[in-house]
Order: sequence, then C-alpha cells, then structure tokens
Amino acid sequence: MSKMERPFDEELKFLKERLMEMASRAEEQIALAIRGLKDRKEPLACQVLDREEAVNQLDIEIDEIAMRLLALRQPMATDLRFITSAMKIASDLERIGDLAVNIAERTLDLLTAPQLKPLLDIPRMALLAQEMVRDALNAFIAGDDKLAKDVCERDDRVDQLNDQVFRELLTYMMQDPGAIARAVDLILVGRHLERIADHATNIAEDVIYMVRGRTIKHHIEEGRTSGLKTCAGGE
Amino acid sequence: MSKMERPFDEELKFLKERLMEMASRAEEQIALAIRGLKDRKEPLACQVLDREEAVNQLDIEIDEIAMRLLALRQPMATDLRFITSAMKIASDLERIGDLAVNIAERTLDLLTAPQLKPLLDIPRMALLAQEMVRDALNAFIAGDDKLAKDVCERDDRVDQLNDQVFRELLTYMMQDPGAIARAVDLILVGRHLERIADHATNIAEDVIYMVRGRTIKHHIEEGRTSGLKTCAGGE
Repeated sequence: MSKMERPFDEELKFLKERLMEMASRAEEQIALAIRGLKDRKEPLACQVLDREEAVNQLDIEIDEIAMRLLALRQPMATDLRFITSAMKIASDLERIGDLAVNIAERTLDLLTAPQLKPLLDIPRMALLAQEMVRDALNAFIAGDDKLAKDVCERDDRVDQLNDQVFRELLTYMMQDPGAIARAVDLILVGRHLERIADHATNIAEDVIYMVRGRTIKHHIEEGRTSGLKTCAGGE
Repeated sequence: MSKMERPFDEELKFLKERLMEMASRAEEQIALAIRGLKDRKEPLACQVLDREEAVNQLDIEIDEIAMRLLALRQPMATDLRFITSAMKIASDLERIGDLAVNIAERTLDLLTAPQLKPLLDIPRMALLAQEMVRDALNAFIAGDDKLAKDVCERDDRVDQLNDQVFRELLTYMMQDPGAIARAVDLILVGRHLERIADHATNIAEDVIYMVRGRTIKHHIEEGRTSGLKTCAGGE
C-alpha cells in the first residue's frame, strides 16, 4: 500500500479529510431525509437508503487509517489523542447516518397515508442537529473547545423542541384515533433527531476531552439530565 | 501512578476485568429497569438513576487504561486491536447504561397512572437483550467469533418482538385514547430495548472484526435491514 509511505503529518491530514468527508455526508443524509419527509418526496427517502453504504464505508476506512497510524507510527500524547478521537467520532457519524436512514424509513411509511399536518418543528430540530454536527466537526479540526462547549449547550434546545413535538402529537392522537399510526411515526422521527443531536454532543465532548485532556463528558451529561430525574435520594 | 509499573500482560488483564465489570453493571441496569417497570416499583427505577454514575465512571477508567497502554506500551497487531476494541465496547456499554436510564425515566412517568396492561413481551425482549450483552462480552474475552456471530443473529428476534409490541400498543391506542400517553411510553421502552440489542450487536461485530481482522460489520447490517427497504433501485 502506497499510503503507508506517506509522511506522518500527511497521514494525519488524510485522516482529517476523510473524517470531514464523512461528516458532510452524514449531515447531507439528515438534510435529505428531512426534505423527503417535509415535502413528501419518496425519491429523496430512497436516496438516503442508497447513500448509506458510502457513509459506512468511510467509517471502515477511517478505522483502518487510524489503526495503521497507531500500529506503524506509534504516536504519542496529542497525536494519539487525536487519532483515538477520530475513531470515536467516526462511530458517532456512522450512527448519525443510521438515524437518517431510520427517518427515511419512517418517511416511506408515512407516505402510504395522507399528510397528518405540515411540519414545522421537526425541520427546525433537524436544522439545529445538522448545525451541531457541522460545528462539532469544525471544533474537532480547529481544536476549538469553546465551540465544542457551545455545541453541547445547544443540545437542550433540541430536547425542548422534541418535547414540544411529542406533546403536540399526543394531542393529535387523542383527538383522532385515525391519526395514531402517523403521529407515532413522527414521534419516532423526533426521537431520531434528538439522538442525532446527542451524537453531535458526544463528538463535541470528545473534542473538549481531546483539547483539555480530561473527561468532562459524563459531568455534562449529568447536568443535562438531572432536571428530569424525580427520585428522592438521586443526585 | 503505580499502575504504570505493571507488566503489560497484567495491564491487559486489568483492562479486561474492568470491561467485564462494566458489562455486568450495564446488564444489571437493564434488569433493574425492567423489573421496576414490570413490577411497578419506583425504588428500582430510582436505583437505576443512582447507579448510572458508576457505569459512566467505568467508561472513563477504561478509556484511560487503554490510552495509557497505547501511549506507553506501543502495542502491535493483536494487542492493538484488542485495546481499540475495548475502547469501542466501553462506548457501547455506556450507551446501554444510558438506555437503561431512559427506560427508568419512562417507568417513573408510567407510574403516575394506572397500569395499562401486564407486560410480557417487553420483559422477554429485555432478557434477550441482556443475554446478547453478556454473550457479546464473553465472545470478546474468549476471542470467540462463532459466539459473536450467534449474538448478531439474535438481533432479528428482538426486532421482531419490538414490532409485535409496537403493533399491539397501536391497537390499544386506537381503542382507547386515554391509553395513548402510556402506550407511547411503552413503545419508547421497546425502542430502547431494541437499541440495547443493537449495541450488543455492535460489540459482537467488533469481536468478529478483532478475531478475523477485517470489517464485516456493515455487511451484516446490510443483510439485516435490506428486507425493510421498499425503494426500487435500492439494494
């Protein structure tokens, strides 16, 4: 393999490029899936399914580059942390791709029935989630822990929108049992978007860990969820 | 740190032990969450929330052990693959822990209303998912790719049960709008369990990759989902 002969810095640059490529594809998958859902366009949903393979392939490729770097270059400190972070980020992006596929699958199901309602909050959530993915990757490339922290903070807004979507759809179901199957599909789409934002948050947390060299991620998570917990004796 | 002075084999053994500890805690979290749900016991749901921190701490610890091994020992080939797999598996276990917490949160919500129906399929799914987690870890420790493949194959059964749960709950909602909020909670529990099984499958795929040294994971996934896709021109 000629790639093994590249200088170390070039290999790192190549790893970075492939990761950016993967991120932009994952982001595109979200956009495509939501456009298919919003505009009720089956071909767009089908495109998402067709393009999944390319995202998965990038995960494999990034893993291989990272393993090669670890095995042959025996990197230290900063580079080591960068490479292992890249592997984790690729996993998150792969899951994001899977979630876009899940949204496309819900769309195909929804398209078998008339539209329940025009969608506003779901595309809004999708846009926020996409921006979180993009900025998390930008933060990674730039080593910008401030931007990463900002991404983590935006997660709350997505959660709020999801709660709103959820409550509104419950109301639809109560009023019209004929709307139930479609409302459940949309609730699931909301959950998928919420999880996409969670993965973007994971990436941002990895960036903070990489930059600051310590694990803050579970502390952030605690803060994020503690409001939901209702148990006496809990944290 | 005295840990740095251990012989390499002992460090690897220690990594293995921490991972097994984390897996057994994650598995316990699932069991506890489902018992809380099934028997309507709020204290059990609260225990799940209280114990999350310990699972998260193990993820951090395993990451640190792995990074130390990579940085200081510069392992080659088999050991390298083992260590990077351990890091990935810890991420999956951490997500499994999160999902158990999500189930506990749904339970706390469900306990504010009378029971919708006695639960049969959900505890069945949970048991299957727990066994998948356990066997995926056993496969990892033993380097047993046959057992890992078996875990991957069991994922279909969980998906089937989840579809069954989903359809049954839709029927409940159609018949009684007063059941909608509770039915949606149970649908989400079903999804959480399905995702736990997916994470166990991810772990098993990592094991196969580790043992066979090539990435089969996305090929398995394709086979698994292709039946769902309804697009002409798709795979």
